[in-house]
Amino acid sequence: MLSRVRSAVAHLVSSGGVPPPNPKPPDLPNTTSVPPALPETPKSLPARAGTGTGTGTGTGSGAPAKTVDTRASFSRPTFLQLSPGGLRRAEDQAGRAVQSPPDTGRRLPWSTGYAEVINAGKSRHNEDQACCEVVYVEGRRSASGTPKESSQGQGLCFYYWGLFDGHAGGGAADMASRLLHRHIREQLKDLVEILQDPCPPPLCLSSSPGASNPSHLVGPQSCWSSQKEVTHESLVVGAIENAFQLMDEQMARERRGHQVEGGCCALVVLYLLGKLYVANAGDSRAIVVRNGEIIPMSREFTPETERQRLQLLGFLKPELLGSEFTHLEFPRRVQPKELGQKMLYRDQNMTGWAYKKIEVEDLRFPLVCGEGKKARVMATIGVTRGLGDHNLKVCSSTLPIKPFLSCFPEVQVYDLTQYEHCPDDVLVLGTDGLWDVTSDHEVAATVDKVLSAYEPNDSSRYTAVAQALVLGARGTPRDRGWRLPNNKLGSGDDISVFVIPLGGPGSYS
Amino acid sequence: MLSRVRSAVAHLVSSGGVPPPNPKPPDLPNTTSVPPALPETPKSLPARAGTGTGTGTGTGSGAPAKTVDTRASFSRPTFLQLSPGGLRRAEDQAGRAVQSPPDTGRRLPWSTGYAEVINAGKSRHNEDQACCEVVYVEGRRSASGTPKESSQGQGLCFYYWGLFDGHAGGGAADMASRLLHRHIREQLKDLVEILQDPCPPPLCLSSSPGASNPSHLVGPQSCWSSQKEVTHESLVVGAIENAFQLMDEQMARERRGHQVEGGCCALVVLYLLGKLYVANAGDSRAIVVRNGEIIPMSREFTPETERQRLQLLGFLKPELLGSEFTHLEFPRRVQPKELGQKMLYRDQNMTGWAYKKIEVEDLRFPLVCGEGKKARVMATIGVTRGLGDHNLKVCSSTLPIKPFLSCFPEVQVYDLTQYEHCPDDVLVLGTDGLWDVTSDHEVAATVDKVLSAYEPNDSSRYTAVAQALVLGARGTPRDRGWRLPNNKLGSGDDISVFVIPLGGPGSYS
Repeated sequence: MLSRVRSAVAHLVSSGGVPPPNPKPPDLPNTTSVPPALPETPKSLPARAGTGTGTGTGTGSGAPAKTVDTRASFSRPTFLQLSPGGLRRAEDQAGRAVQSPPDTGRRLPWSTGYAEVINAGKSRHNEDQACCEVVYVEGRRSASGTPKESSQGQGLCFYYWGLFDGHAGGGAADMASRLLHRHIREQLKDLVEILQDPCPPPLCLSSSPGASNPSHLVGPQSCWSSQKEVTHESLVVGAIENAFQLMDEQMARERRGHQVEGGCCALVVLYLLGKLYVANAGDSRAIVVRNGEIIPMSREFTPETERQRLQLLGFLKPELLGSEFTHLEFPRRVQPKELGQKMLYRDQNMTGWAYKKIEVEDLRFPLVCGEGKKARVMATIGVTRGLGDHNLKVCSSTLPIKPFLSCFPEVQVYDLTQYEHCPDDVLVLGTDGLWDVTSDHEVAATVDKVLSAYEPNDSSRYTAVAQALVLGARGTPRDRGWRLPNNKLGSGDDISVFVIPLGGPGSYS
Repeated sequence: MLSRVRSAVAHLVSSGGVPPPNPKPPDLPNTTSVPPALPETPKSLPARAGTGTGTGTGTGSGAPAKTVDTRASFSRPTFLQLSPGGLRRAEDQAGRAVQSPPDTGRRLPWSTGYAEVINAGKSRHNEDQACCEVVYVEGRRSASGTPKESSQGQGLCFYYWGLFDGHAGGGAADMASRLLHRHIREQLKDLVEILQDPCPPPLCLSSSPGASNPSHLVGPQSCWSSQKEVTHESLVVGAIENAFQLMDEQMARERRGHQVEGGCCALVVLYLLGKLYVANAGDSRAIVVRNGEIIPMSREFTPETERQRLQLLGFLKPELLGSEFTHLEFPRRVQPKELGQKMLYRDQNMTGWAYKKIEVEDLRFPLVCGEGKKARVMATIGVTRGLGDHNLKVCSSTLPIKPFLSCFPEVQVYDLTQYEHCPDDVLVLGTDGLWDVTSDHEVAATVDKVLSAYEPNDSSRYTAVAQALVLGARGTPRDRGWRLPNNKLGSGDDISVFVIPLGGPGSYS
């Protein structure tokens, strides 16, 4: 599909009507390109070893590391504790091993289950990446160099899970998996005191240097009577949103020096002060399965779901469309011979369709086209939010696509204290490799089936669920392919899954 | 509130720091201005008499009337069949009579119930307007002058209900109540054949003159393999969306000649081919009450619900903000003495809040401010969608507000054939005068209570519900005001309500 769309654009753009030679396309999400016949050569060493961002408690010092070398060739999360042989198996497209942290080693925080299969065949270095950390946040140091002390004199801890689905190169996913939680920590530093204070957050902070007690907080009473109430929760949401933006800006700055190729979808979860914050930018998905009930915790951001946002931007800033694209959507490509006829269309204001007389400008390629997994922005990319992609251009053109992509996540909050959870209640995070071939209900059924086969206090039960989900989406080798029980082909994409228990013995270790 | 906000802007804008004399503000939605002490002088004749847009079947001919004289002083819907005395009572602010169509006269189509109270005290000629029609749509005439015949050789009928809540003058609401359904009819003319054909709609229509059979429709099979499926339903939605836009454009063209002052929210419902289409632009509301269950059929469009859309526009087109406004939102007004301090803010990308250092530009007035009924765009208007407002400017400034307002409705569809409805299931439409003081659940309770007191086949039962709702929201005269049972003040606004039965004997008459 992608190559067809691409050559259509190229054909349109080329003035002579002769299709230009097909350049090697970068590998982008949701393509259906055929994997190369030969598995890639495995690398001998995981590039992540020794970077200090491994499993367990995060380091609490320093700004988001600007010096981390992200020039990794093939790497897997350190928490998988892969031996060189395990790393080779992970990369082996023919074997498609499902990988999980070892039973015998250090467990993931919070009894988290994890499993992945990295096909490494769809493209070179295009893998999902993952991160699972406990991060300590110290309060911001004052101008005098001494840390500000809260009334409790304590910093904050948050649990953190992140899935990063890379495209067009592995650099962005790799960098995000190492650094995004540090950006979040940095954003939370200003809030350490405020979040632990039961009073409503101050609307305005004095900047007097050396202030060391809460009197520097300008409370609501000193201000106008008309003011909005701001919750602690919305400060955490704002911190996550800004952290995503700063991560994206860092990728833009360092893309040359550190080979931050491509982009990635990011789905991350924070546990902080009793609440789970689920932040999604892209087409990964999170659901809570509670007592068999499914509670969606994210929405997917694709050319279809964000059509009107994209079209509005194209309408307001037509220079972003060049002379190749139109902001109008048509249900199929308009053909030159149809000039003057009436065709269905919709613009940035419409959810319905109407007929319009076809004019010359309508022959341009639509900014948004296709549907489902084949939907594309500028005939190129199938997700509309995420990190990176600063170099992404329309094929055979210099038009940048980044202005249409948003790095901002949508954050949904789940208050763990509002419900009595049992050991079988879980939050499942998965990249699109899982959800493309598995429905929410199938995931809930697998959760139920696998967990009921384990004792509630068996710490390996959540990893067993993750493995079952990845195996089910990958399929089993049959009839020249990895087949699902219904004989359909399994996901040809990377698949990575976190299963996070919401209650029960040993969950919050 | 409004005048306070206004003078704040004026103070900001005026360079010398001296507040300018307070000009007479136009009356805008959600203001809390005190009504004048004296009731207005009643007019002697309803301006609507003889305009040919009264109750019953609509006229099927002609384009949306460009010659209708909308220079009405005080008028009520013709279907109320008000005598001169009734009209005086309707306008009498001291009496605040609840008006409904008479029991003895011609009933509204579809056994619809209606009631209103027009306070006429909040401002002069600022009233809600309403329309209830059965409209016949003839197929578009071909170039040869003969009507195209569908396979059935028939046009289409739709039932239509509209509530128009005016502000800053009565002209826009009056004009919309007379003409919007004609624009919808005009948009549907192209679709008469297509909507009655069970095949999927053609994506492209030939324009060959004189074509008189369905062979002029270019079906999917003749097109590219990659194309979207378009439903009949989405064509009706598109027709309604475009009709709203054309109505708004007509107001812009004719505002001088016909004194189309002010703007209006519009909530309209179409019944067509088994489905109800509920289109809302503004802060009116529609709910279905079915077997006691509440199903929301609209969302309100206010500065709060559309904050991010407004901020994005201000960010992308800063010239629309002049030098007076900032697209950033702050929880309260920033004060000059706070320069350099950190204050909470959010921009077009954020749903959470974060702190930023206050700079000079942040001292500008926020594009969106306030909350609840006091939320405002540019310190002026409390709704963000609707028709008209082409002349609306920021107080003491030449900045137009219209670019931030959208004339497009959100359309929700309710398929009547999907459910078995009983005579007590209804669709309730109300302007904000109802919903400001009445919750959805209170409305459902009133529906239940009133309908159970009437026989299911009593045709006056739905008007009785509408009257009870209006009476309940208006309150009863007590203690220097119109008080609700909980002793709170009743709605000081116009209130108009349609109650549309979804099933039961005689409903679809």
